[in-house]
Amino acid sequence: MSLLHSNLLNGLNFSGGPGVLPESVLQQVQDSILAVPEVGLSILGISHRSDWFATVVAELEDNVRQLLKLPKNYHVLFLQGGATQQFSMLPMALLAGKTHPAEYLHTGYWSGKALPEARREGPVRVVWSGESCGFGRLPADEELDFHADAPYIHYVSNETVEGLQFHRVLGRDDVPRICDMSSDFLSAPGDFERFSMIYAHAQKNIGPAGVTVVVVKEELLKDTPDNLPGFLDYRTQIETHSIYNTPPVFSIYVVLLVTRWLRDQIGGLAAMDAINTRKAETLYQALDESNGFYAGKAARADRSKMNVSFNLPTPALEAEFIASALAAGFSGLAGHRSIGGIRASLYNGLELSAVEKLADFMANFRSHHLPLVAGVGKGNH
Amino acid sequence: MSLLHSNLLNGLNFSGGPGVLPESVLQQVQDSILAVPEVGLSILGISHRSDWFATVVAELEDNVRQLLKLPKNYHVLFLQGGATQQFSMLPMALLAGKTHPAEYLHTGYWSGKALPEARREGPVRVVWSGESCGFGRLPADEELDFHADAPYIHYVSNETVEGLQFHRVLGRDDVPRICDMSSDFLSAPGDFERFSMIYAHAQKNIGPAGVTVVVVKEELLKDTPDNLPGFLDYRTQIETHSIYNTPPVFSIYVVLLVTRWLRDQIGGLAAMDAINTRKAETLYQALDESNGFYAGKAARADRSKMNVSFNLPTPALEAEFIASALAAGFSGLAGHRSIGGIRASLYNGLELSAVEKLADFMANFRSHHLPLVAGVGKGNH
Repeated sequence: MSLLHSNLLNGLNFSGGPGVLPESVLQQVQDSILAVPEVGLSILGISHRSDWFATVVAELEDNVRQLLKLPKNYHVLFLQGGATQQFSMLPMALLAGKTHPAEYLHTGYWSGKALPEARREGPVRVVWSGESCGFGRLPADEELDFHADAPYIHYVSNETVEGLQFHRVLGRDDVPRICDMSSDFLSAPGDFERFSMIYAHAQKNIGPAGVTVVVVKEELLKDTPDNLPGFLDYRTQIETHSIYNTPPVFSIYVVLLVTRWLRDQIGGLAAMDAINTRKAETLYQALDESNGFYAGKAARADRSKMNVSFNLPTPALEAEFIASALAAGFSGLAGHRSIGGIRASLYNGLELSAVEKLADFMANFRSHHLPLVAGVGKGNH
Repeated sequence: MSLLHSNLLNGLNFSGGPGVLPESVLQQVQDSILAVPEVGLSILGISHRSDWFATVVAELEDNVRQLLKLPKNYHVLFLQGGATQQFSMLPMALLAGKTHPAEYLHTGYWSGKALPEARREGPVRVVWSGESCGFGRLPADEELDFHADAPYIHYVSNETVEGLQFHRVLGRDDVPRICDMSSDFLSAPGDFERFSMIYAHAQKNIGPAGVTVVVVKEELLKDTPDNLPGFLDYRTQIETHSIYNTPPVFSIYVVLLVTRWLRDQIGGLAAMDAINTRKAETLYQALDESNGFYAGKAARADRSKMNVSFNLPTPALEAEFIASALAAGFSGLAGHRSIGGIRASLYNGLELSAVEKLADFMANFRSHHLPLVAGVGKGNH
């Protein structure tokens, strides 16, 4: 496998996650497997109790706070177990024993996964569900009625499967706002101080699978129970700076490298968003100019900049599209197994040129198959 | 950082964990960061739902079963959260609501950590504690009285901090036997079929931090509760072959490479044990021939082949020893922060030649410092 060839394949990786990471980060990660430059040991064999690793965690905490423009009363944690663990850990801390229900939005596959885990721990009210409309759109403000007595509200900022993204902050400022940002974390600036907790697994925009970033405001945790297992207790994790037990050292180090890349190479979240916006515009334009051949799943106003989900006229054409794309070097384009179709994920690590190549490929594929499709409806003439 | 230099440092890494991995595995891992040969994508950007990753998990499950000589009614899981998560997950599944206490041995730092987590979930009886003897030895059979009505017995096969290791199987065959083998997993053959569950985090002998192997017998889980969060439910993890949610893809892949190395390069666990035994003998000989200058902590019969913990005559000499060793390229020799002193960890990935070099260094260090130490007692003449 030559470097050139591998670059080409990584560069056209549209996987929904684990997703592509920036090439310059991969180069540094590769070096670190034999030796982290400032330590001289493999990143896989460095103690989590070493002075060096303490500086890694401290810098990464600061980098995340700085990128999100958050003050010091927000703690930054690096946990295991993915967003799935947060689906449980969060209501264990903030919902168990409560009378008033926590308020959840059900806007797609992943916000739906959070519901049964929360219900296991305490009362839940679903403020709005997109189930009846096949998760084709997100709610408007006038459809949402949040209660002042809720322990917290919870929603997913970007529905990875359906390709739906909120382009505003939801909820009310007198109720703690908690958001699963797994698939759009650090992809754009935002009013992050309006959130009491944000969590995101790393494997979309910021690193390998195996670490989850939790950003939590100090005061949210003042009344959490004392009888939780240590690894499921946010306060224990805060006190130990995420080194309650052995953390995923490698994954945390890679996230550090990605935040440095975001800050130093890209120039921060506004610059990242400008690139991500161009990527998304390029691909949605390919959909919009296809005269319905590529039919986007999401309502226009709720289109995600991270995940573009769409269908072709027939399942057979979708299978052919995926196979042809793969032969041309584009990988990861199959839609999520729950809904099928096509999904192109445009995470931070993917370059604009890759999206332009995909748009070209799509135009070509369409022009080759359009007569055929038209023929289907017109009796094969 | 030249390859030679990094090899030298990795080769002399005696860290208690995360520990050194075999050089040939590191080379393959390094390649995989840019591209896994059979996929053409970075290991960090491959979907956990890909066909390729399913083959990784399937092969790794088989490799672990084959190395341990276990039949198919043992499931092999790859979870997150370390042994610490198992300290809770295990009693959640097998102790909650029980009348008879589970039986735990308290033989050192790590078995002690398991106790409060188990007590949170149900009744616990400590069968034996080494606390009063400073965890300097392990119990003899005649000191142990296991009850037939216990839901399970739990012990730690190798106490990483104190350097104590059981060289026999404990308990009784009519009570499920559960063992934390985190620091000696896959280091030697054994009667593993006598265990109902074995768990081990990867970062000692078999991989990077961030994945924990659980080997569990089907019938142990027949009455476990149905109301556990999915990620803490062994049966959910079994049904999904560890892909309940996104698993730590990279760490699992590295563990696969280590099991291939164990099988193909080393030749299995008996061959691994032969090497590990020579390594341990070499270092203990250095202790035994030092006339008390290097004072081992563990009783002879209970000496660990994985972790050799010892003291020098004074804390000042210990500090000088660690600094001199580091200057000579030996890293990771500081004892665990809970007890100080020196600890040399001899995990699978460490070569015999490294231990021989350390033994030489120790002999030299002693000969340079012996007159000084003798002088302390004799008035500086």
